[in-house]
Amino acid sequence: MSSSFGKNLTISVFGASHGKAIGAVVDGLPCGISIDEAALARFMKRRAPGQSLITTQRKEADQPIFLSGLVNGKLSGSPLAFYIENTNQQSKDYNNLRDIPRPSHADYTARMRYGEAVDMRGGGHFSGRLTAPLCCAGGIALQILKAKGIEIGAHLKQIGSVQDRTISFTDPDMDALQKVSHETVAMVSSQSRLRAITYIDELRQEGDSTGGIIELFATGLPAGLGNPNFDGIENRLSQALFGIPGVKGVAFGSGFDGCLDRGSNQNDPFRLENGEVRTLNNNSGGIQGGITNGMPLVLKVGMKPTASIAKVQPSFSYEAGANTDLQIKGRHDPCIAVRAIPVVEAVTALILLDFLLDNNLKLD
Amino acid sequence: MSSSFGKNLTISVFGASHGKAIGAVVDGLPCGISIDEAALARFMKRRAPGQSLITTQRKEADQPIFLSGLVNGKLSGSPLAFYIENTNQQSKDYNNLRDIPRPSHADYTARMRYGEAVDMRGGGHFSGRLTAPLCCAGGIALQILKAKGIEIGAHLKQIGSVQDRTISFTDPDMDALQKVSHETVAMVSSQSRLRAITYIDELRQEGDSTGGIIELFATGLPAGLGNPNFDGIENRLSQALFGIPGVKGVAFGSGFDGCLDRGSNQNDPFRLENGEVRTLNNNSGGIQGGITNGMPLVLKVGMKPTASIAKVQPSFSYEAGANTDLQIKGRHDPCIAVRAIPVVEAVTALILLDFLLDNNLKLD
Amino acid sequence: MSSSFGKNLTISVFGASHGKAIGAVVDGLPCGISIDEAALARFMKRRAPGQSLITTQRKEADQPIFLSGLVNGKLSGSPLAFYIENTNQQSKDYNNLRDIPRPSHADYTARMRYGEAVDMRGGGHFSGRLTAPLCCAGGIALQILKAKGIEIGAHLKQIGSVQDRTISFTDPDMDALQKVSHETVAMVSSQSRLRAITYIDELRQEGDSTGGIIELFATGLPAGLGNPNFDGIENRLSQALFGIPGVKGVAFGSGFDGCLDRGSNQNDPFRLENGEVRTLNNNSGGIQGGITNGMPLVLKVGMKPTASIAKVQPSFSYEAGANTDLQIKGRHDPCIAVRAIPVVEAVTALILLDFLLDNNLKLD
Amino acid sequence: MSSSFGKNLTISVFGASHGKAIGAVVDGLPCGISIDEAALARFMKRRAPGQSLITTQRKEADQPIFLSGLVNGKLSGSPLAFYIENTNQQSKDYNNLRDIPRPSHADYTARMRYGEAVDMRGGGHFSGRLTAPLCCAGGIALQILKAKGIEIGAHLKQIGSVQDRTISFTDPDMDALQKVSHETVAMVSSQSRLRAITYIDELRQEGDSTGGIIELFATGLPAGLGNPNFDGIENRLSQALFGIPGVKGVAFGSGFDGCLDRGSNQNDPFRLENGEVRTLNNNSGGIQGGITNGMPLVLKVGMKPTASIAKVQPSFSYEAGANTDLQIKGRHDPCIAVRAIPVVEAVTALILLDFLLDNNLKLD
Repeated sequence: MSSSFGKNLTISVFGASHGKAIGAVVDGLPCGISIDEAALARFMKRRAPGQSLITTQRKEADQPIFLSGLVNGKLSGSPLAFYIENTNQQSKDYNNLRDIPRPSHADYTARMRYGEAVDMRGGGHFSGRLTAPLCCAGGIALQILKAKGIEIGAHLKQIGSVQDRTISFTDPDMDALQKVSHETVAMVSSQSRLRAITYIDELRQEGDSTGGIIELFATGLPAGLGNPNFDGIENRLSQALFGIPGVKGVAFGSGFDGCLDRGSNQNDPFRLENGEVRTLNNNSGGIQGGITNGMPLVLKVGMKPTASIAKVQPSFSYEAGANTDLQIKGRHDPCIAVRAIPVVEAVTALILLDFLLDNNLKLD
Repeated sequence: MSSSFGKNLTISVFGASHGKAIGAVVDGLPCGISIDEAALARFMKRRAPGQSLITTQRKEADQPIFLSGLVNGKLSGSPLAFYIENTNQQSKDYNNLRDIPRPSHADYTARMRYGEAVDMRGGGHFSGRLTAPLCCAGGIALQILKAKGIEIGAHLKQIGSVQDRTISFTDPDMDALQKVSHETVAMVSSQSRLRAITYIDELRQEGDSTGGIIELFATGLPAGLGNPNFDGIENRLSQALFGIPGVKGVAFGSGFDGCLDRGSNQNDPFRLENGEVRTLNNNSGGIQGGITNGMPLVLKVGMKPTASIAKVQPSFSYEAGANTDLQIKGRHDPCIAVRAIPVVEAVTALILLDFLLDNNLKLD
Repeated sequence: MSSSFGKNLTISVFGASHGKAIGAVVDGLPCGISIDEAALARFMKRRAPGQSLITTQRKEADQPIFLSGLVNGKLSGSPLAFYIENTNQQSKDYNNLRDIPRPSHADYTARMRYGEAVDMRGGGHFSGRLTAPLCCAGGIALQILKAKGIEIGAHLKQIGSVQDRTISFTDPDMDALQKVSHETVAMVSSQSRLRAITYIDELRQEGDSTGGIIELFATGLPAGLGNPNFDGIENRLSQALFGIPGVKGVAFGSGFDGCLDRGSNQNDPFRLENGEVRTLNNNSGGIQGGITNGMPLVLKVGMKPTASIAKVQPSFSYEAGANTDLQIKGRHDPCIAVRAIPVVEAVTALILLDFLLDNNLKLD
Repeated sequence: MSSSFGKNLTISVFGASHGKAIGAVVDGLPCGISIDEAALARFMKRRAPGQSLITTQRKEADQPIFLSGLVNGKLSGSPLAFYIENTNQQSKDYNNLRDIPRPSHADYTARMRYGEAVDMRGGGHFSGRLTAPLCCAGGIALQILKAKGIEIGAHLKQIGSVQDRTISFTDPDMDALQKVSHETVAMVSSQSRLRAITYIDELRQEGDSTGGIIELFATGLPAGLGNPNFDGIENRLSQALFGIPGVKGVAFGSGFDGCLDRGSNQNDPFRLENGEVRTLNNNSGGIQGGITNGMPLVLKVGMKPTASIAKVQPSFSYEAGANTDLQIKGRHDPCIAVRAIPVVEAVTALILLDFLLDNNLKLD
């Protein structure tokens, strides 16, 4: 299969939604660095289910059990390996799903790829639950980056028609992003937050769902990080970000909107300020030719509406060889984008740390 | 560096805009297949400069000279290697650019990555000119795919405010896409074409530029192609597509717009039709969990406005250590998206062929 | 770090000798295959310590605990993940080793690579103990290969001056190899076995050690498996085999000895037999140009003498900054080659399965 | 296919023996370094055919034509691409070989892997001729290493029963190796040289061939270079070295012989000398746990006897479906090991430079 990413720092996730455990092996972390496990737990909690009324009511402790790589709270040089027990599966909710594939889930495609024997209860290895180990690995990467002066923050830019306040591309308010990261909906504007929660709750009651657009900022990156062509910042980031279940689009800087604008508006002219090179705009999102220019990295990730909705949907039965209707039971998030923000931060942190471990720049 | 992509089929590009030649090595092509060199030349011509008034007036023959891998018109099992001579450089246009980096080009970031010695005349190895070898390699992949019943077509979905006609996601009109592929602007609607040409010509006269959104369709793909998590269809495609200079966003199916919609609208319910599994919509763009479902693959690529504009822009001089203005000379496309369509098709074809060479499905 | 190998089937080992656990993630195993866990345990026992007087007296249960990838005894399509608890560490035996590096161990080089913080108790992540997860993963690969008619067997070709009986390269006696695989020393000749045990026991009493040469045969491989140049059978196998601690040499077919012979003796002339292509000799070990020819695969692995010997050895103290003598305590194998045979079989099986999953041949 | 190696520095070879050209793309070379093209030509000449009576009488100019990556004699940051024209093919010598596979060549296995269409004239892409581009790429790597104080030298340790003088593992005489590198046979002892030449010439007259063992030394490597397990010095080196046609064995330090010795003889005890860590022996060949210890790297490569011999050999005809005899015509080296020494040096240099570009050590 294909459950790894990274070049110098490789992250391999394992597990299935309704198996014994999920987890990851992280190979290449710098040796000797202390990990703040309490801060890591707080970060992982942002992704955990059951934290508010508008997320799924499943409860999972999501406590990583470290098997190797961490000795007396320090990274020990060997691969970091950990698992998280699955404690709250309700497999009976999935009884009819072996026979009737859920629309816009991987049930059908996984069976075409792996055959009948593939274990797809709860989404199996394709489940959003696999993002818990990503958050554990990425939470550690975030701590290492922070010590190097690199900060990552993200918000929900838009859910349905509810937009958050605009964040500056040249001087993003990282404190504001940090402050709202533990809110029910991570929007900087309190008005938008309220409207988003109301909207999501309406959808929940209707048995429907929505997606959303997450916008991420990373500050403090050195200029000159990355590579041209097929192994640059956008390449490695997009490859990894599309591994988060539900991601349908990845864009950098002003993204698709900027592509419909004029060059004279979109270009990022240079300005020397106290001997430092900056750009007046940052529509490129801090990257030119796959390489950082020292301005904030800006990216957008589109998350599709949760595919598991309570409404009746057309599908078919393998056994009957006929069309049939399907009603999905179980406990589902009406908007998975809400809990996906720390996942996008985690994956971005892992890739940026991977680049810092490239040969062209040295992590001291 | 980082000038390769692909797992079973690897494509390594080389060359620089103002060097002796550009080219590629393509390793892993199936042995014994005949290549139609005339069709390949027609395909490459779609990307070539100087074909219309709204593209750059540089003329390049872009004739690939095959060094290995092609014997008597057939792929011979050894890596395909070819080069294309650079015949039309006007390096003097770049004389002042060593000292003054062009906004939204890779001049500054390349120097931060590689040091002063990096050759960035005409964009160097970062130049859009490197897409010529991609088109040669991809043109061959397109021929192989076509023989397997897989067709790829694309159009300019939007330039500025000019939108093309909507193409069906479930039954894309591949003939229409094929028909307009050699038009000055590959839009299906003749009215949109005219408006687009007019708009681009206005920008050219103003010394300005625009970007655009390219939409691609691939039909005839088997279900079950791809992998979960980090090595699926979206992952490999996005990694490669972001290697095309100017790409700022990649999205699948209904993309970012679909992310703002409801699940009940966006889900793709199943329908058995004559024993075949189809979906009623195709908002997922033919992919679930990184694996094809047999419906058309749909993707969108956002190309930024050409960074080289004739208007004066702020920059700085390394030598003077001071801010200065810059006026870019030379011959540039006012809308690079126009010529990028075959490049997006080529890269997509190469990645899809790469997947067909994966272990889970066999190319007979 | 670097704890993975394989292209289509990737094996990532984790853990350290004196940490909580060791284990592996195996990604890409075919879905739906039943695993015989009792046979797997028997295979792993061949590597386990404490099985005879001439191996280390450490006792480790080496029971893999499967976290994912195995559902009701069948491979489920998701990565196989498992760990083995470390239960018998005696870390006090390693108290002085943090300061005084052991000759011909990785203590010094690991510290130069990772810094002081690296955890090297018991060899840390470099320990031979990491071969237990390799045997678990490889034991599964051996079962899959066997079902395809591919058998792997190995013997100790030589220890010190004690040679085993010659095994035919063209028709290796796989039954004989199988029969002696659970012997104290896996030599086919009972006389050689006895002499080897006597020799190893003498060394043990002297506080000394020896190495040995392992010879492996794989039968039933199809012709046409592999690739030219840098990704052929020898390339992938040697890369993985040198990952087994203590391996100093890898050779194929008649190996180094054959290199000193004449071409007219060493060439493998062809012979059609009942429509099947065979070779009269098999000095190439079943491989030409990195690709199998259908004859038995033959390879040799040289394992160095156990570096941990009881004799006093010169070393130095980091703290004192001065030369000093070192006496290694603890329980060590006088000849690690004895227990390394199943490891060589396991790694070979994993790589051969990896090749069977290549695009050029299909595992049905 | 599989014609690339390297992680940070990737080398992709292309071409076939009787095609238009052979060549390589080298991606990741440091930018701004001056290349001494005359020294490169002298290095490549050591591999070139037709230099003495005991090598093949084919003459090839082997002049690399650089397409990119070299601007005004300096590495420019973009991939280095070059080709070498094939000027001296005599394809008629291969007329009967399409139908009758040559023993111990890749004719049969290539056809099983790629099908009938594979171009195997002169060995095709499997030909030893592909080592010319390796020497060009590696000759550049050698220059870069030398500027960092790293020197590589090799000799023919043994041909048939003719042994060269022993070279010290702890203090190899690099000057002596350098001095004899342009001799007909690169042996340090002039007596051995003479005996080797006589022996090879005898074999040539008999229409027979021999192999040989090449021993290589690299001095000046820093300690701490490499990685544990599957991506260490031995792993990457062996993977690449087995890509040289004819290599049947790779061993490090005292190699297979050392494996039959006692630990008390083979261990490398430490000694501080003027604050520097050294070992008293160097049986490990400068590597422990996949990582350099600062002592000379020592490795041995076994090259098989040239498979192309003039004697009549048994084979079979595809067309006749029957056994038949084969007499190989053409001009062949009686001992390919003689010309393989610079190839082994080149490949080693490329891999060592690859490691110097790893994240753990920085090439300034």
